[in-house]
Amino acid sequence: MKEAHISLHDPIAALATPLGTSALAVIRISGDTCIEKLDSLFVSKAKLSASLPNSIIHGIIYNPDTKEQIDEVMVAVFRRPKSYTGEDAAEISCHGSIACVAKILEILRSAGFRDAGPGEFTLRAFTNGKMDLTQAEAVNEIIHAQSDKARLLAFHRLSGKLSRAINTLKMKLVDILATIEIMIDYPDEEYEHQHIAIETLTDIEKRLSALADTFRIGKTFQEGAIMAIAGKTNAGKSTLFNLLVKEERSIVSEYHGTTRDFIEEKIAIGGIPIRLYDTAGFRTGTDKELHPVESEGIRRSENLISSADIILYLVDASEGMTPDDNLYLESHRDNPRIIPVWNKTDIQKSSAPDCFISMSCETQEGLHEIEKTVSTVLLGNTKDISETVMIDSQRQKEIIDAAFAAVAQAKKQLKAHASYDLIAFDIREAVNHLGMLTGEVTTSDILNTMFDNFCVGK
Amino acid sequence: MKEAHISLHDPIAALATPLGTSALAVIRISGDTCIEKLDSLFVSKAKLSASLPNSIIHGIIYNPDTKEQIDEVMVAVFRRPKSYTGEDAAEISCHGSIACVAKILEILRSAGFRDAGPGEFTLRAFTNGKMDLTQAEAVNEIIHAQSDKARLLAFHRLSGKLSRAINTLKMKLVDILATIEIMIDYPDEEYEHQHIAIETLTDIEKRLSALADTFRIGKTFQEGAIMAIAGKTNAGKSTLFNLLVKEERSIVSEYHGTTRDFIEEKIAIGGIPIRLYDTAGFRTGTDKELHPVESEGIRRSENLISSADIILYLVDASEGMTPDDNLYLESHRDNPRIIPVWNKTDIQKSSAPDCFISMSCETQEGLHEIEKTVSTVLLGNTKDISETVMIDSQRQKEIIDAAFAAVAQAKKQLKAHASYDLIAFDIREAVNHLGMLTGEVTTSDILNTMFDNFCVGK
Repeated sequence: MKEAHISLHDPIAALATPLGTSALAVIRISGDTCIEKLDSLFVSKAKLSASLPNSIIHGIIYNPDTKEQIDEVMVAVFRRPKSYTGEDAAEISCHGSIACVAKILEILRSAGFRDAGPGEFTLRAFTNGKMDLTQAEAVNEIIHAQSDKARLLAFHRLSGKLSRAINTLKMKLVDILATIEIMIDYPDEEYEHQHIAIETLTDIEKRLSALADTFRIGKTFQEGAIMAIAGKTNAGKSTLFNLLVKEERSIVSEYHGTTRDFIEEKIAIGGIPIRLYDTAGFRTGTDKELHPVESEGIRRSENLISSADIILYLVDASEGMTPDDNLYLESHRDNPRIIPVWNKTDIQKSSAPDCFISMSCETQEGLHEIEKTVSTVLLGNTKDISETVMIDSQRQKEIIDAAFAAVAQAKKQLKAHASYDLIAFDIREAVNHLGMLTGEVTTSDILNTMFDNFCVGK
Repeated sequence: MKEAHISLHDPIAALATPLGTSALAVIRISGDTCIEKLDSLFVSKAKLSASLPNSIIHGIIYNPDTKEQIDEVMVAVFRRPKSYTGEDAAEISCHGSIACVAKILEILRSAGFRDAGPGEFTLRAFTNGKMDLTQAEAVNEIIHAQSDKARLLAFHRLSGKLSRAINTLKMKLVDILATIEIMIDYPDEEYEHQHIAIETLTDIEKRLSALADTFRIGKTFQEGAIMAIAGKTNAGKSTLFNLLVKEERSIVSEYHGTTRDFIEEKIAIGGIPIRLYDTAGFRTGTDKELHPVESEGIRRSENLISSADIILYLVDASEGMTPDDNLYLESHRDNPRIIPVWNKTDIQKSSAPDCFISMSCETQEGLHEIEKTVSTVLLGNTKDISETVMIDSQRQKEIIDAAFAAVAQAKKQLKAHASYDLIAFDIREAVNHLGMLTGEVTTSDILNTMFDNFCVGK
């Protein structure tokens, strides 16, 4: 999106649904005079511009130059400020036909509509005060959510939980700033106020740090993790793979036919989207004994395993630990990403070595423990997080870190009895950073970068 | 779709937009109490069931069991009979997120909605008298239209042009039937009436036959044609291929990234969707001189050429006719699918042999003639067809052929002075067939077959 678009209100149009053959497609328009402009392309009993806001008008889109009729559509009319963008806007629901969509967009262009850039509708919603930046980000996060939990966490941000938490902290900082300014004017009351400020600053510091810490968790829910099943040939890797896929098939892969070219499936464990990979088994023997295709498979598996966020390492309990298993586990002894699994306990009742999870794909014993361990490795020992305010964007993390640093600096200055002007400067910086988080303080650079990741039509 | 669905009005739900990550997704619901059922999953200032028809209500879909909020949505409320299906219906516009769509469909299911079968919304529109069968077919044809012309022809059918033409013919047959019944009762006036009937029957026969003839054209616009560019290596095939793609790129391929694995592109010539293929060049020499990969390419090209609807056979004018060219064109002398092209006339000004089109990719001389010839080969010498009523479904073709046969039989009987009962029987059959075309007369078999080709959600 060009920087020039940021403060514009010109009429824009974009397909808001995926392009494809389907029952319906929705073309979204927004901007000054957009409803009047659409009226000039629309045949109906009622004029759109004379219709009630939030009403739906049935009619036909036609080409005013050739009089050719394009499609029978339903138009939803929205009037500012009660629209997604805060501007006059409409949604044209046409047949889900590529030919119809293409033709309608073409006619909208000739009528003076500009193709919207990525995220431009949401950018307008932000600039018109319909949502703050954390909510705008949440819109994009909901759209890209890969699991139900990810959707829920993003929905919390959309409903303003994060903004409210941030605003509470900001108000506290503003209070301190006011106090300090009083102290600048009336230096006699210094000691008592300084004491209060330090306690509050420490509390704010803690809260900012806790919020920053949610980033890894929020990011894990949003972006998911890569998990590989490793181990020797015949350790039961494929059986466990299939069991996990059957039990934990993700909401996304249920609907998307995932490719079967690689042995990869999308699952969700504890709400974390996980790309699960089966890998080629390790084999005793040197590469020279192997067929080139097989050694290539093992090489790729090794690459995958080294880049995975978590590795289930299977040992066949009926065979026991082999020298290969010992070698591998020994060389990765302190790697928390590796979860050793003592598999096939239905065949062999021997007790598992220390640190191993006992697993039987037959009886599903151990499945729950594997899931719990995977969650703990990826999230740490978090409690129920469904009500926690969480961040998941790099932008938010950087801003909170910067606010934290400014608060810490203010505290340090306060303790060192630095001049109040210096302390006020640091606190003002912290307030500014928090303002950037919600978008009260913003630059066009930030907006351009942020909205470029959005879908067109959003 | 199960036959049992045909006369149901139970609440159904389906995603109406393609599944994918996008700004918006629309879930459609229809059926008895569907709005009241949705109310139980919806938090908003206003109840959906208390809202004006054709209005849009903003709110949140939630799970009434867990109280968990799912997504912020806009719901468009429609009340019977003023809805697509003719029943109470609604469209839920949610975030274009697979996770949201999956979760909302899941919650609708627990609230008593059934997943709609393919075309079930349109089937209900038909059974509730909102459209006839030719219009229902047109809905599907618009959705699948591959060119702008195909969209336009389907739109004409949707607006009822075909139905009106059929009804006119049917009324004429019903008039004749009435006349014949009078003749059965008052045999004295026989001769005069018989004469009138034969003239009218002949006219109806002609019109039915003309309509049946539009099938090939309608089908060509809807399904498109395969065109291959053939000729010797260096005859300029790829240059012509690229020129045609540049000039005639179809509305569909402009939006869809077509695969480049094969040298294939979607273009539209005179509104006909065409899959254009470049082929491996013929080469002088026997297969034995060729590399196996190359002979495989030539073998595939030959298969393609033999199945193509149209073949542009290029001869390099600067080289002139080679023995291979002579051999090929001689052996396909009476094949109307082959259009010989005298290429590179910018290099070699020699005049083209008979039946050849002179072509220069440099100056684009000949391009228009090629397009005109392609149209003529595919459509015959039709005039402007944009206002013609046309059929394009096999079902329609078969019914019209059957009606034609019945009318012809009636005429034969009338000429042979057969009993009026027999003649009346044939005419009644013709009337019935025409009734099947629009769906006045129908069987559940027909409906099941027809709607099974539809998108879910339509």
